[in-house]
Amino acid sequence: MPELRKDPISGRWVIISVERGKRPSDFGMRVSPKKGGFCAFCKGNEHTTPPEILAFRNNGEKPDTEGWTLRVVANKFPALNVEGKLDRVGEGIFDKMNGVGAHEVVIECPDHSLTLSTMPLKSVEDALWAFHQRITDLKKDSRFKYVLVFKNEGDQAGASLEHSHSQLIALPIVPHLVEEELFQANQYYKYKERCIFCDIIHQEQGDKTRVISENDDFITIAPFAPRSPFETMILPKNHESSFLPDGNFTLLAEILQRTLQQMDKVLHMPPYNLMIHTSPFKNEINDYYHWHIEIIPKLTKIAGFEWGSGFYINPTPPEEAAEFLREAEI
Amino acid sequence: MPELRKDPISGRWVIISVERGKRPSDFGMRVSPKKGGFCAFCKGNEHTTPPEILAFRNNGEKPDTEGWTLRVVANKFPALNVEGKLDRVGEGIFDKMNGVGAHEVVIECPDHSLTLSTMPLKSVEDALWAFHQRITDLKKDSRFKYVLVFKNEGDQAGASLEHSHSQLIALPIVPHLVEEELFQANQYYKYKERCIFCDIIHQEQGDKTRVISENDDFITIAPFAPRSPFETMILPKNHESSFLPDGNFTLLAEILQRTLQQMDKVLHMPPYNLMIHTSPFKNEINDYYHWHIEIIPKLTKIAGFEWGSGFYINPTPPEEAAEFLREAEI
Repeated sequence: MPELRKDPISGRWVIISVERGKRPSDFGMRVSPKKGGFCAFCKGNEHTTPPEILAFRNNGEKPDTEGWTLRVVANKFPALNVEGKLDRVGEGIFDKMNGVGAHEVVIECPDHSLTLSTMPLKSVEDALWAFHQRITDLKKDSRFKYVLVFKNEGDQAGASLEHSHSQLIALPIVPHLVEEELFQANQYYKYKERCIFCDIIHQEQGDKTRVISENDDFITIAPFAPRSPFETMILPKNHESSFLPDGNFTLLAEILQRTLQQMDKVLHMPPYNLMIHTSPFKNEINDYYHWHIEIIPKLTKIAGFEWGSGFYINPTPPEEAAEFLREAEI
Repeated sequence: MPELRKDPISGRWVIISVERGKRPSDFGMRVSPKKGGFCAFCKGNEHTTPPEILAFRNNGEKPDTEGWTLRVVANKFPALNVEGKLDRVGEGIFDKMNGVGAHEVVIECPDHSLTLSTMPLKSVEDALWAFHQRITDLKKDSRFKYVLVFKNEGDQAGASLEHSHSQLIALPIVPHLVEEELFQANQYYKYKERCIFCDIIHQEQGDKTRVISENDDFITIAPFAPRSPFETMILPKNHESSFLPDGNFTLLAEILQRTLQQMDKVLHMPPYNLMIHTSPFKNEINDYYHWHIEIIPKLTKIAGFEWGSGFYINPTPPEEAAEFLREAEI
């Protein structure tokens, strides 16, 4: 009998095939081998990207030249425009506003051949620092309510360039999925006076079947009701409502890279999407929401059932996925 | 400047690139040519599927033999099990229940080479009849709250078999996306005392830029805030809360097939997902919800931004998509 499970954070139900779960070898999706050729993100081609917004390089070096270890530039083909007013307006029954927002790219490392799981740990830590610095800066712009940090690895996961990079999109509205999580977390807090994420961490640490790894400050789990096989979630163990106010990036980089290495080992370098969810600017420090990273390997297709229902069919129980990932020798 | 548009039915925002919209030729996705080979859905192989639940065939013919024009059978690999009790239960903070539901396949036509857009119109009409009959039957089972009808065309859209077929999944819970639409429609009704869908139809008929086609009873539009390029929606012009209580399937079949033919012509047979949204069994006849068909051609990838935000980036304004589809000579 399959199981219907409800994700307590989003309120979303998923169908889990608990009986004959699909094993890692049942999924054929791999990141395509890198083709190489000209790459605007490689060192030496700094002049072909928009100018640096932020870069980690030795003091005194000129911007947009070689010598950097990390660069942040504006997206050359932004989804939203950074200039302009919102101009919220109705069109009869409909609502619209100008597509105002920032869209930036974080080039995590100059080496074309590396990924978040193979680059030096220092580069992963630097990327987290860069996210934090850019969010802090974009927050000053009163038009923006939220910054979504995400990463697409592999063309099947939507990456249009193969050189490893992450993206930030500053938005004039709080994303729908974040609003849903905030709503559920708030309801739970009103009832229990506890953070739902803290309670989940407590339960998972006792149960152990869905825990993948832990260090002093962070824990990686397979969520109870994952949308996708081998979906994982990284959370700070202590309550923190927004993305690292105290900036402990060393331990976060360590568990993030370890999680990606475990996934690469078990699933042979699957394409994936990674997203950071954090409290919106407006109520950044609160008792009910808990920032986290979600990682979804791209192994199944979104089809009519998912488009029509908002439910997901997941052929691998998270308990089995967690066991595979936990036992991966990296 | 891109535009942020809000879909008034789901409450979801999308980013529309209104300046340099992607044209049909910019999308490379096509349905793969059919490979043929053994097919359980072809005539002569009736014994290889689960037994017929419903079939359209001449009186007196034996079930599960040749001679049918349409067959409905249980899905051999169902997402949910039809036997069993729900057994809702908690697991600490989490909620789960048995995966009880029905999962059926509608084989719309015996000919392996045809699709909904190329099969005889009578077959399309029969498929709609079959949906209606199966929903009416499944409704009698008190465990079920909703039946989602959907179709995946092409392997890129999630079809695992190439012989044209639709699917029905009876669910013990109302799908999340339907709940969202019901909520928004209800809010609107409380405020305006009118159906939001009726108001949208009225505005679109006046505006005309997003209308694709019409007949006496139905209208096809490109929604104001579509998730995907060339997304379309078919609605009954008069208020009807649930899937065709008076059963006018001829005109529905006609506009559905025409819409798919226009899409095939403009986008060269794209893979697509089709879903029917209707009021749940519990409050089937009401003044605020309006059943409809959604068709999403599979032209873009769902990536980190969409997974993380629940927003969509749509590179083709619906006004341009509607013009292409409207002017397609079929």
